[in-house]
Amino acid sequence: MPQNRQWLLDNRPTGEATASNFKLATTYTPALADGQVLVRHHYMSLDPYMRGRMNDAKSYAQPQPLGQVMQGGTAGEIVESRSPRYAVGDKVVGMGGWQEYSVVNVEQPGALRKVDTTHVPLSHYLGAVGMPGVTAWYGLVKIIDAQPGQTVVVSAATGAVGSAFGALAKARGLRAVGIAGGPDKCKYATETLGFDACIDYREHKDAASLSKALKAACPDGIDGHFENVGGMVLDAVLSRMNAFGRIALCGMIAGYDGQPLPMAYPQLILTQRLKIQGFIVSEHMEVWPEALKELGMLVGTGKLRPRESVSQGIESAPEAFLGLLKGKNFGKQLVKLV
Amino acid sequence: MPQNRQWLLDNRPTGEATASNFKLATTYTPALADGQVLVRHHYMSLDPYMRGRMNDAKSYAQPQPLGQVMQGGTAGEIVESRSPRYAVGDKVVGMGGWQEYSVVNVEQPGALRKVDTTHVPLSHYLGAVGMPGVTAWYGLVKIIDAQPGQTVVVSAATGAVGSAFGALAKARGLRAVGIAGGPDKCKYATETLGFDACIDYREHKDAASLSKALKAACPDGIDGHFENVGGMVLDAVLSRMNAFGRIALCGMIAGYDGQPLPMAYPQLILTQRLKIQGFIVSEHMEVWPEALKELGMLVGTGKLRPRESVSQGIESAPEAFLGLLKGKNFGKQLVKLV
Repeated sequence: MPQNRQWLLDNRPTGEATASNFKLATTYTPALADGQVLVRHHYMSLDPYMRGRMNDAKSYAQPQPLGQVMQGGTAGEIVESRSPRYAVGDKVVGMGGWQEYSVVNVEQPGALRKVDTTHVPLSHYLGAVGMPGVTAWYGLVKIIDAQPGQTVVVSAATGAVGSAFGALAKARGLRAVGIAGGPDKCKYATETLGFDACIDYREHKDAASLSKALKAACPDGIDGHFENVGGMVLDAVLSRMNAFGRIALCGMIAGYDGQPLPMAYPQLILTQRLKIQGFIVSEHMEVWPEALKELGMLVGTGKLRPRESVSQGIESAPEAFLGLLKGKNFGKQLVKLV
Repeated sequence: MPQNRQWLLDNRPTGEATASNFKLATTYTPALADGQVLVRHHYMSLDPYMRGRMNDAKSYAQPQPLGQVMQGGTAGEIVESRSPRYAVGDKVVGMGGWQEYSVVNVEQPGALRKVDTTHVPLSHYLGAVGMPGVTAWYGLVKIIDAQPGQTVVVSAATGAVGSAFGALAKARGLRAVGIAGGPDKCKYATETLGFDACIDYREHKDAASLSKALKAACPDGIDGHFENVGGMVLDAVLSRMNAFGRIALCGMIAGYDGQPLPMAYPQLILTQRLKIQGFIVSEHMEVWPEALKELGMLVGTGKLRPRESVSQGIESAPEAFLGLLKGKNFGKQLVKLV
């Protein structure tokens, strides 16, 4: 019965999230029942969507319950098994949450998935070959559905979703333009991730200025956009959308702290006959096998080299998460536990 | 060579449109060339979209040129023909503009359409069995695509588009809720047009108040919405949309004079996984035959009894049009010339 440290949501943020919203608890893993396995987490995934669930607001997911372990994706190893389906040593991904171990009922659909780490490092199953990668795939393929030669834009371009989006877009013969925060991220976007251009939104004080930069980076206009941020970025992109453009709305991180985040000119949806669609990738499990196969190939062949920001040890999770919300991460944010 | 009075766009509005933007001119119809017909207009159609085209702004259509006859739909009768396809006395609809006569090259695709006035009055071909009706049909069938029992909402519910939308929705087994301005229009919406409920937006000073009224009128939430107005109405509807709801964006009349018209909480598109799509019915000519057939049946069988506001004489067009923009019309706004 190993000791298991875990982060609970202690109280909900008022405005910006802070470290005091979380509480570290120590417990011991329980004895397993039949059909259960014990997973030792090697990596915890930190994702922007978690901030939304810290609020007690109507949203697509139930709010994160107070006093419970923070929910989230994990990648790890079976260390004890009372199921014939899993052997000790198997590498698995699941939703173990912010803790060092989790007990999983293997018969629960989707609770655990065995992964092959021969060509793809374990951590990537939480990023490019996991939920963030499939998110990018769904937005690009199912909502934006661009034709070769068209121009697509993604905000938070060097993040886990954005970098997968860029690789998928380039593999499809599209012009891919990123929006990211700071010169280092923009350099990485164009030099390593393969984006055709990247705009540093920090150089622009308003949507009009960012819109001008988009015009230069997208001389033929924008046919598809993948939105992770909202606010000024979305306003600027809207002003450059071509007729019949498609916008996949995946996140609006700019509004997670409760700021007003109005869309300045919704008239553009009409005048340009745009389609804007919000989606949650976990509601489209039917596409995961196809998407993961393509993402695994891109990573296995080196066409997608996802960058990771890795913080060390369970204690580091809240600070790493708060940094992620401020854009301090560079690529997929993980916590390494082993 | 009959005398032909016509309204030209003399200058563009700054803010609200006024009668001084238009100029009445008198000319004579020219002699016909082979393949041309002369149409005497019985009715001119006045539609909200015309206001948008008076601005010199990037939009789906070219701006209305200055010094030219105001463009718009017309229904009339062939009075002279140099084409074997049309005989004197044929009833036709076309885009003759704000004038008493037009000369039409009949070989130009879509320029003129012969109509049968046995069961459907000529004027309805500019409304319920014309462009506004097909507009309602496209939004309901191709974008909202609701299942029987679902709830749909339409703003400007007693207008040409809204009334057709209500009849089409009821014929499909949907709960149809209208939004209109004033108790008379709301009474007409429920008692004559068949809406299940109608909300008078003038009773609500802000989106929060209108949202409460929508909650009462839509106890199961809103699955589909057809937007003609924008602003407060769209904000209120967004707050009541069910997961996976669809919004057809057809008009934003509240912003035609250049007012800012921000969408307050675009986050709802994400959290409710909505689809918002703008469209222009003239870009979807392939659906017109199917839509017109259904609309003609609804009118012919009395299931859709469209109301008309008819102003008399070519001189009355600008005032009738400005009244339409303020919601003074009640049903389809026409100008009767004969």
